[in-house]
Formats: sequence, structure tokens, C-alpha cells
Amino acid sequence: MMIDAISFERDALRYLDQRFLPLKEVRVATRDYKRVIEAIKTLAIRGAPLIGIAAGYAVVLAARQFKGKKKNFRAHLFKAIQEIEASRPTAVNLFFATARLKRVIDAELAQSDIPELAQKLEREARLIHDEEIERCELIARNGLRLLQQEFSHVLPFQRLTVLTHCNTGELATGGVGTAFGVIARAWEAGLIEKVYASETRPLLQGLRLTAYELEKAQIPFEVVSDSSAAFLMQKAMIDFVIVGADRIAANGDVANKIGTYAHAVAAHFHGRKFFVAAPISTIDFAIADGSQIPIERRANLELTRIYGRSVAKDNLPALNFAFDITPHSLVSAIITDKGVLKPNFADAIAELAPEQTESYDNA
Amino acid sequence: MMIDAISFERDALRYLDQRFLPLKEVRVATRDYKRVIEAIKTLAIRGAPLIGIAAGYAVVLAARQFKGKKKNFRAHLFKAIQEIEASRPTAVNLFFATARLKRVIDAELAQSDIPELAQKLEREARLIHDEEIERCELIARNGLRLLQQEFSHVLPFQRLTVLTHCNTGELATGGVGTAFGVIARAWEAGLIEKVYASETRPLLQGLRLTAYELEKAQIPFEVVSDSSAAFLMQKAMIDFVIVGADRIAANGDVANKIGTYAHAVAAHFHGRKFFVAAPISTIDFAIADGSQIPIERRANLELTRIYGRSVAKDNLPALNFAFDITPHSLVSAIITDKGVLKPNFADAIAELAPEQTESYDNA
Repeated sequence: MMIDAISFERDALRYLDQRFLPLKEVRVATRDYKRVIEAIKTLAIRGAPLIGIAAGYAVVLAARQFKGKKKNFRAHLFKAIQEIEASRPTAVNLFFATARLKRVIDAELAQSDIPELAQKLEREARLIHDEEIERCELIARNGLRLLQQEFSHVLPFQRLTVLTHCNTGELATGGVGTAFGVIARAWEAGLIEKVYASETRPLLQGLRLTAYELEKAQIPFEVVSDSSAAFLMQKAMIDFVIVGADRIAANGDVANKIGTYAHAVAAHFHGRKFFVAAPISTIDFAIADGSQIPIERRANLELTRIYGRSVAKDNLPALNFAFDITPHSLVSAIITDKGVLKPNFADAIAELAPEQTESYDNA
Repeated sequence: MMIDAISFERDALRYLDQRFLPLKEVRVATRDYKRVIEAIKTLAIRGAPLIGIAAGYAVVLAARQFKGKKKNFRAHLFKAIQEIEASRPTAVNLFFATARLKRVIDAELAQSDIPELAQKLEREARLIHDEEIERCELIARNGLRLLQQEFSHVLPFQRLTVLTHCNTGELATGGVGTAFGVIARAWEAGLIEKVYASETRPLLQGLRLTAYELEKAQIPFEVVSDSSAAFLMQKAMIDFVIVGADRIAANGDVANKIGTYAHAVAAHFHGRKFFVAAPISTIDFAIADGSQIPIERRANLELTRIYGRSVAKDNLPALNFAFDITPHSLVSAIITDKGVLKPNFADAIAELAPEQTESYDNA
């Protein structure tokens, strides 16, 4: 069973409209970059890496939609790119993608006609996509090896149960996923008995999306309410926790979906490993520690309206932090595409920094 | 602003149908005991003490509804009581209430005519209600004193922020509440700055009912997702946690709504006090520790359907423990109607045991 969250075929972007998951699988094919902008705005396409991939293809569509003279092409395309960038201004992957396509335009515009240029843009957009897939595979492979090492004393006798939070699979990344990728490859390798997916209030990405991905991958799972995870650990039903990351500070502090920190505290209290899986690009070397990562407060409506249904009055006072910070002291390891980082994270991350700066330059 | 969760006036039971809260305040008045049974079955009336109060009044209604000869009265009433007891067979307060009314019938039947007997039953039912109100007041008073002591060093300079979970106010108890009662009286005494009410997935009693009670009491509050409570503690936004209890073992282990344990672990990790407020009748002296308390697993539909709205397929694998166990080692104090218990709880509870046995006899 395939999810096929996003693909580019016969000059059209095809994507799964995630707003209707898991109850309906609505698949869209479009040759209009404005439709992609709309999809990103409405969260039909979501997940930082997936947004980056979609943004790349959106630029390709905008190039193919151009009907004018070549001298106007650059202005047309840069205007379209601006619109694309405005669709989700906080999604850093989106800007990584558009920056790469802008560079292709400026490098290739002089010596290419418009169809050739569109071809080159498509090649770059596919490269962004392929690189995300490859990054996921590298993370998954590194994670699998880590689990084999960390649990070498129990794996001869039993398989592992794992708790994950929010959504980190193909629907978020376009590849096998970050935390989800590790779980999927570990399942295929026979290490995993069962996955507990915490539902992830308020937006229920765990209940809606991760459960859908687990079902598609035919991995045994149960959804649990976020607040029951600690109780499952008390009952020794969870061997380890693995989550993704939205941003990682230079000291290893991790910003991720609200609820991650509660899981980390519970894992610490019960002596369970707490792993973070994320590409190196998630590390913000300029941020010394988690206290400097701004935490978005989102609308109280996310709590009072659930999947469109009002549960309480719209004006109910509610405090809705979208993310939280897990201090590095609660993190057992950070699994990246460039290897597994272990404490002391500050040193491990510092070693990666120069290479990373270089790769930012390439981006 | 009054909630008026339950009252008995002009031979009718009046109650607030809690299924529609907080969006609609549907008030029902009935003289038919079968309507009360229906209300308990459908959770229109819920919360262990409130169910006990309603059951008492339901017996009164059944007595008043009897139209036959006196010799058939006892059989009629005991049949009605059986029906009432079957409405929510796990609610122990319900059986406490019906047992008291059965005793009145057997003690008074010979020397009373039916109207007199109905009068005596009404007196007993009102006594059950009054005792719940009184029990709440005693808990609230003891809790207030405890807070004044525990926070005597900070209260001259600042008021306190408190996290509570699930619903423990008038809607649950018919009185000012257990944990909620402590909060309400502490607020009136100027100790409380703000209440954080965790929403309490899956059934959202915090978001729906506690928020409603806080609003009615005009106490400043914000609803938070269950899993963000730990993050609020990290940010030093919560001074203490107070919750109710469904059952307390002889060693002080506490069974309460799922999510309580996660809050207790987070409070422990952050060095915050974790208080339990419950009447002595919640203590099960026959249960040595929490491991012997059976934990109900409820339908996965409670997770996949929210307030009637399907969010995922009905057959989604989900693990839904309704309660969890908080070990006594994480509990700072248990606030009861007979005083505040502190560690070592086993000794404190053992001291109460004989009195309790006596009060069970009286019940």
C-alpha cells in the first residue's frame, strides 16, 4: 500500500490532500502553481520538508505556465516565487527550495530558452525531492543501527515497543520519514513489536496522520491519548520514545510539537531512552540553547474546535503553545543523516558546524 | 452566577443535562424516576457523588409515583431501586445512597402511611445531598489551610497558579467540589492568581465542564491541552497541581482520570506540589496498593469520535485506559473531609480506618 504524498508526473504536481485524512483520500493533480500555493496555505500540503518539495515543483509549474516573451520570463517567475514564499512564511524549507530554484534561473537564463529552463528547474525540483528521500533513508539507517546497539542485550529475546508523537512519516517529509523512518526500517528488520502513536492534541496529527501511515505500512500500532503515555511507561509497555524535531539548538535542546517535552520527562522518570530523529538541516547553529527558540502561541480555536466541530465557545480562554522545548539533558541521542549525535551534544554539534555552513552555502 | 447542577423542589428533581455543556444549558425537571435512570445512563447526570445524590431523589420520586395499596409498596419500591442501581452499576456512591433509603423503608414502613414514608425518604435523600455539600466544604476548608501553610513563604508576595485535571466541581459533586472546592475557596481567600484546566482527553471534561464551572465562579483560567502542562511547569507557570480521586488505596496510591499520572510525574520532575482532594469515602481500606485497583479500558470510539464527530475510522486500533494510578510517592498530601493526610500515607490512612468502618456501618 502506497501513500504517495507527492509526485510530479506528466508536467503535473500530484498530491494527497491531507485535510481529509484519514477519513477520505482526496488526490489532486494540478498544473497551476496557484493551486499549490492554496494547498500549502490550507494545510492540504503540510510538514516542513513536504512544503519545501511542493514549493520546488510549484516554481516549475509557474515556469511552464508562462506564455510571454523571454525578456519578461525572469520577472514573471520571481513574482510567482514571491507568492509561493508568502504561502507559509515560517516554513524555512520553503525558502531553501525557492533559493535553489532562483539560483538555477540566474545561472541558466542567458544560455537557455524557456522550455530548456523549465527542464532545468524541474531537474532541480526533483533533486530537492530526491534529497529529502535520501536524507530520510540515511536517518532511518543510522537509527536502525543505533537501536541494534542500544538494545543489543534485549533484542535476542524480545522485540521493542515504541512511542512516537505527532507526524514524521511520508506525509510530513515526502520520504520514509524521520522518526517514522527509523520505526519503519526497524520494523522491517524485525526489531519492533508495536508502535504507540500519541494522538497529538490539538490538531491530532498522531491520531489522523501517523495512524494512517502505520496502517499503510502494515505496522502493528495503537493510538493513545497524549496523557496516557506516562501510564503506559509505568506499566512497562514502552521501551523507547522517538520523535522528530522542528529546530535543534547548538547545545542539543530540541523544539518539537507540543507534548514532546511531557513524553521526554516521562521517559526520563521511567528510565526509557528518548531519541530525536532529524536531518542536520534542522540544527540552528546560531541558536545557543532552547530558551532562544521562539515558541508560537496559536489560536485557542484549535482547542475549542476539533476537526471543524465546536466543543466549547469560540472565546473560551485557552493557552495553546504549538511547540515545546525539550532540554538536551533529557535526550539520549539525536539521529541525523550525518550520523548519530550523543551527549555531550554541544561538542557533537560543533563538530558538524563547519560542514553545515558549507551546505547552507550550497543551498 | 449559579450552576445548580441538581436540586429537589416542589416534588420534582431538577438537573442540568451535562451532555450539552458548555454550548447549551439544558435544564430538566422531572417527577418520573425512570427519567432519572435515563439521565444517569446517558451521562446527562455524571460524577460519582452527583449520581449518588440523583439516585436518592430518584427513590423519592418512585415512592411518590406509587398508586397502589400499601402492602405492595415495598415490592414496588425495591424493584424501582433495583432499576436505579442498574443504571450505572460501577458507581459505588449510587449503592451507598440506595442502601440508606432501603434502610429508611425497612425501619419506617410499619409505623408510616405512604405519604409519611415518602416524606421520610425525601428527608434522607436531602441528607445525602447536604452531606455531600458539607463534605466538599470540609475538604475545601482543609485545603485552604494547607495551601496557606505550604505557601506561607510566597503568599505575602504573590498569588498562586494551579493546574487541575478533569472535573471535580459542582457538576461532579453537587457541592463546591473536591479539588475544585479547594481552588474556589482559595480563590475567594485571595490565594489564587489563575487556574490552568487541562482539557482531559478523551472526553474533555476539563475543556467542557471545569472551564464552565470556572467561568460561572468568575475565577481567571485558561484551558490547556493535557500534554502542554509539563511545558508550563518548565516555564514556571504552575505553582502546584490539585486533582480529585476515584479511589485511593490503603497506602495512598491514587486512581484518577487518565492523565493524572502524567501531571504527577511532571510535578515531581519540576519540584511542584501535587495534591489530591477527596472525601474519606474514596479510600478503599481493603486495597493494599494501586496495583490492585482494576483500570477500565474503554471503547476506542472515545478517541476516534470527538463530541459526536468522527475524526478517524471507528475501527482504528486505540488503547483507551480511562484511569491511571499515581503512586503515593508522587503525592504531596491528600486533602480529605477529616483532615489533611501527609506521608507516610499508610500510617495516616490506617489511623482513619476504624472510624471509616463505623461510618460505613452508619451508611
